[in-house]
Amino acid sequence: MSLEEQMRALATRAKKASHALAGLSEDEKNRCLRAMADALSASREVLAEANAKDLETAATMGLSAAMVDRLRLTDKRVDSMANGLREVADLPDPTGQVLEVYNAPNGLKMSKVSCPIGVVVIIYESRPNVTADAAGLCFKAGNATILRGGKEAIHSNMAIAEALTKAARATIEDFPEDAISVTPTTDRAAIPALLADPELVDLCMPRGGEGLIRAVADCSKVPVIKHYKGVCSVFVDRGADLNMATSIVVNSKTQRPGVCNAIETVLIDRPLVERYLPELARALAAENVEMRADATALTALQGVDAKVVAAEEADWTTEYLDWILAVKVVDGVAEAIEHINRYGSGHSDSIVTKEEARASQFLNGVDSSAVYWNASTRFTDGAEFGMGAEIGISTDKIGARGPMGLKELTTYKWLIRGEGQIRK
Amino acid sequence: MSLEEQMRALATRAKKASHALAGLSEDEKNRCLRAMADALSASREVLAEANAKDLETAATMGLSAAMVDRLRLTDKRVDSMANGLREVADLPDPTGQVLEVYNAPNGLKMSKVSCPIGVVVIIYESRPNVTADAAGLCFKAGNATILRGGKEAIHSNMAIAEALTKAARATIEDFPEDAISVTPTTDRAAIPALLADPELVDLCMPRGGEGLIRAVADCSKVPVIKHYKGVCSVFVDRGADLNMATSIVVNSKTQRPGVCNAIETVLIDRPLVERYLPELARALAAENVEMRADATALTALQGVDAKVVAAEEADWTTEYLDWILAVKVVDGVAEAIEHINRYGSGHSDSIVTKEEARASQFLNGVDSSAVYWNASTRFTDGAEFGMGAEIGISTDKIGARGPMGLKELTTYKWLIRGEGQIRK
Repeated sequence: MSLEEQMRALATRAKKASHALAGLSEDEKNRCLRAMADALSASREVLAEANAKDLETAATMGLSAAMVDRLRLTDKRVDSMANGLREVADLPDPTGQVLEVYNAPNGLKMSKVSCPIGVVVIIYESRPNVTADAAGLCFKAGNATILRGGKEAIHSNMAIAEALTKAARATIEDFPEDAISVTPTTDRAAIPALLADPELVDLCMPRGGEGLIRAVADCSKVPVIKHYKGVCSVFVDRGADLNMATSIVVNSKTQRPGVCNAIETVLIDRPLVERYLPELARALAAENVEMRADATALTALQGVDAKVVAAEEADWTTEYLDWILAVKVVDGVAEAIEHINRYGSGHSDSIVTKEEARASQFLNGVDSSAVYWNASTRFTDGAEFGMGAEIGISTDKIGARGPMGLKELTTYKWLIRGEGQIRK
Repeated sequence: MSLEEQMRALATRAKKASHALAGLSEDEKNRCLRAMADALSASREVLAEANAKDLETAATMGLSAAMVDRLRLTDKRVDSMANGLREVADLPDPTGQVLEVYNAPNGLKMSKVSCPIGVVVIIYESRPNVTADAAGLCFKAGNATILRGGKEAIHSNMAIAEALTKAARATIEDFPEDAISVTPTTDRAAIPALLADPELVDLCMPRGGEGLIRAVADCSKVPVIKHYKGVCSVFVDRGADLNMATSIVVNSKTQRPGVCNAIETVLIDRPLVERYLPELARALAAENVEMRADATALTALQGVDAKVVAAEEADWTTEYLDWILAVKVVDGVAEAIEHINRYGSGHSDSIVTKEEARASQFLNGVDSSAVYWNASTRFTDGAEFGMGAEIGISTDKIGARGPMGLKELTTYKWLIRGEGQIRK
């Protein structure tokens, strides 16, 4: 079989499984998830063996120490995967929820009801825990999952998926064999082959660096929900509580600079340049943050004990993921909104101000998935949004936007109940 | 400027307009819509002139009489466009609706609020009325629209868009110039150029034949919401009220065979083959419907006064849009569901039965945008679903599914209000 045929066969089996999954009860799904969790804990040794193979190969691949660490499956990490599945079991079933009701004058009763999406492909790198996390969430939402992890984790991923499937099969009779599958190859050409037919695969969610996500989006014929990067900003308005502003800027930048909801730019309202910017610069310098400042800010920061260099155009769109922050002076909230909509990535942006009218203008005008007033951007995260678990963050606008939990793994259909109505 | 540059410039202007549109109040939008409606009625002569140019060209293009008729802008049709805009003005604003609220333990108040999508491209054929209908709906939802009609209607479409824009500009000062635009060229190469950058265009909705829609979906780099075709079915269950079944099958097939929610297949439960199928065949024959029957049905229909031929595999997936109906015998509801999920187009399907358990199984198991119990499939339509107006029907699962009205022209964002919260 060619690679294309293999992937098509895999997707066809997953599609069939998805139809069976849609018929499982909430109780059946939860029993499976708990059995899967127990199976992971009971499979520590098998998983360690599989993981050892991956670590061995990794040693010959020249992976960075950080990559190797992410790959490692310790007992603690296995337990954490298992607990993740138990938590998913405890969450309410996102399917079968009546979202809207319309009773037509002709007596037809229409209801818009949440239901599984169908077949979801997850493409990810390194961390084998994604295998269990993503499979568990997709399963709870009634979707069949095809997992395509990195080649460095193939043995670990296969072993995890096998443990999950075996446990579910032993728990309920009608567990569809192909509900959770791992692509048997990590050949790059398998990705376009897997994402070739929207009648078989309903959604793809790539998770990883911008390069991976762009490659997936470029080749996919099925809908992709994703975020490329997080170029987030805090705007310090002239009406801000300045202590709060410093605290929010420093937290948004430094609490964990390597993640997508950390900020890359601070926008300073012009009246604050003299009386506040030096103070903020000193606070950032104390955290070893380098600043890339526009001309106005650069002038204002002359003589201030901080690491400041001149910003270039590219700085406004760069996701540093590092202890670096671009600084720009803007004339009020309208210009701040314009800057963010032009250069930002539509992820998370915040305004610090005591003025409600300007806050409303910002909340309304900024075209991002999460817009904050007087809070750190670091809260964009499924757990912080009360979703219980997160499968990713979307900066797309069609389908889910912002943090994605179980509900965002469903679609809906209209169910219409009649008594023989026909159209005149 | 190259075509690519032209389309990019057009999309860039629309993007800018979309940010301004998001700031208009409901009242401003409604006043514009009413002014647009009045302007259309007042522009009958200008529109007739532009339309005459299109009709002249059409005469040289060898268009069918039906196509020419669809192209014609009569006074009545202009008034009907104008009334459509007035109706849209009367509908509630779909943006700014709070869809969900979450108050986090740390005091953050999160709300999920509906908002415009941004820039929506509509690609369509023939009927110039789509220009006003689509522009009006998109505008009410706060989106900038780029309209790309057929080359046979270019003068009419341009004249309509100009009348709308002029009226809105005269009504409110801050009407963004590029809120509604018609592509100045109908060169086919303009489509991929227009749909090249997801940062400029947020959504494309092609309306027309399957060929057009596939061409758009194939070349687009931005999300496309669409339906390719409507291969819809009615399943007559062994527990059906048979008079109701006949009425629903005949209505679903013949009330208007050329539309997507008409059925192409009837599935007959095996116990009904002898005692019901001949009766149904006679009712269909009375309406001049040709049947394409599987082997079992063919045998049962021998000697019945009806037009019946043997079905081929291709019949199960064909959208006849004609007085033709495929007939298949299935063993109960499970096989009916399997047939529909395998061969159908995920549009509209119906079960006729008095048995609630089997109806539930069907409603739950059929993976289509609208699933009916004891009703004609012909009701899948925005107006019938109480949406007030319809911009199209989607068989996609990401984004809107089923009939799409104003609400389906919005997305959402999360607004988070804090008092200085930072992440620990």
